[in-house]
Amino acid sequence: MNKLSDPPASSNVVWHQATVTRARREAQNGHRGAIIWFTGLSGSGKSTLAHAVEESLHQRGCRTFVLDGDNVRHGLCGDLDFSDAGRVENIRRIGEVAKLFMEAGIIVLTAFISPYRADRDRVRDMIKEGDFIEIYCDTSLEICESRDVKGMYKKARAGQIAEFTGISSPYEVPENPELDVDTGSAELDTCVSQVIADLMKRGILLHDQCITETR
Amino acid sequence: MNKLSDPPASSNVVWHQATVTRARREAQNGHRGAIIWFTGLSGSGKSTLAHAVEESLHQRGCRTFVLDGDNVRHGLCGDLDFSDAGRVENIRRIGEVAKLFMEAGIIVLTAFISPYRADRDRVRDMIKEGDFIEIYCDTSLEICESRDVKGMYKKARAGQIAEFTGISSPYEVPENPELDVDTGSAELDTCVSQVIADLMKRGILLHDQCITETR
Repeated sequence: MNKLSDPPASSNVVWHQATVTRARREAQNGHRGAIIWFTGLSGSGKSTLAHAVEESLHQRGCRTFVLDGDNVRHGLCGDLDFSDAGRVENIRRIGEVAKLFMEAGIIVLTAFISPYRADRDRVRDMIKEGDFIEIYCDTSLEICESRDVKGMYKKARAGQIAEFTGISSPYEVPENPELDVDTGSAELDTCVSQVIADLMKRGILLHDQCITETR
Repeated sequence: MNKLSDPPASSNVVWHQATVTRARREAQNGHRGAIIWFTGLSGSGKSTLAHAVEESLHQRGCRTFVLDGDNVRHGLCGDLDFSDAGRVENIRRIGEVAKLFMEAGIIVLTAFISPYRADRDRVRDMIKEGDFIEIYCDTSLEICESRDVKGMYKKARAGQIAEFTGISSPYEVPENPELDVDTGSAELDTCVSQVIADLMKRGILLHDQCITETR
């Protein structure tokens, strides 16, 4: 029997020890943890696709979470401004949090413009090969601008928003994303199926329905 | 059939919509999400207890995660120093990340000294009543110092560490923690049982084994 008051040497199995490993969580969940990093212009469909993929994964019995502007902008990253340093730090923190979720055995989907290759690659570099799936939401600027969901492009064209990605600030297209999805013209269900098929191919999903541990 | 290129008005169920809610995740998991916030002096047994509770919860089929120095100090909070502002920001970020895990339906356990009431209460205030369980790891300074797991107290006494909690910096004992655990003399298994019983009482755990959704 271990006592908290025992010195560590006498109970090195229990003392400070994390016994619930990523592998045990993944066995419990019936799928691998991973980071699905959606990138693309504003209006390219990142958030829509991320949530639709999440819905499909949830129905398959997977454990998932979406990180997007809605849940990090005013919380974890609420102290950051839109300066270069602020944008770099924003993506860094999102990467670190995504990594924690992945360690927890979860399929975490991130939906941020993340326009700079260097920022995305910095996240990729802190993750083990195969755990980071970069998905380019491939929609032309013309289509994004015609959608203009929040009226942001109109404001950017009028010069009311400084450094708006695609208009007055660059978007660096991924050179070797794990997946390129035609979110400009394909149907949503088609895009979702394409992502799910990719996760199957990579062994992140093992079965059509997750086979979880039973007791 | 929704297309990504449809304007939002025509597909307001799908567009940008988070359909996998906390409630659906909790139903999937068979337990509630919550934040179990362990606080206490260095050496009081926070991390040991958090990991032992996690092991017990995992064996019951729960989804859990421990946030502690090992996984946030060099990652998410790697840019922070030990100044007052750095310590405040450290606890703030941990609170925000814990909140995201809770929204994901997970029982997240945090193990940080978190010596100041104001910092702990700031986290409490951003969480809904009943979702934040503060657990005081109640071990006297004498016992913590006699354990001195990492030799830190010795160094602090020798003046080699500035502002060491309990020696040269205050620890503010929680006034109304949800639970006070005698980590100074009780056996580890007893402490774990006490925490599990408390989670049962609060309805975070509903059954002895999680009854999860089957398909």
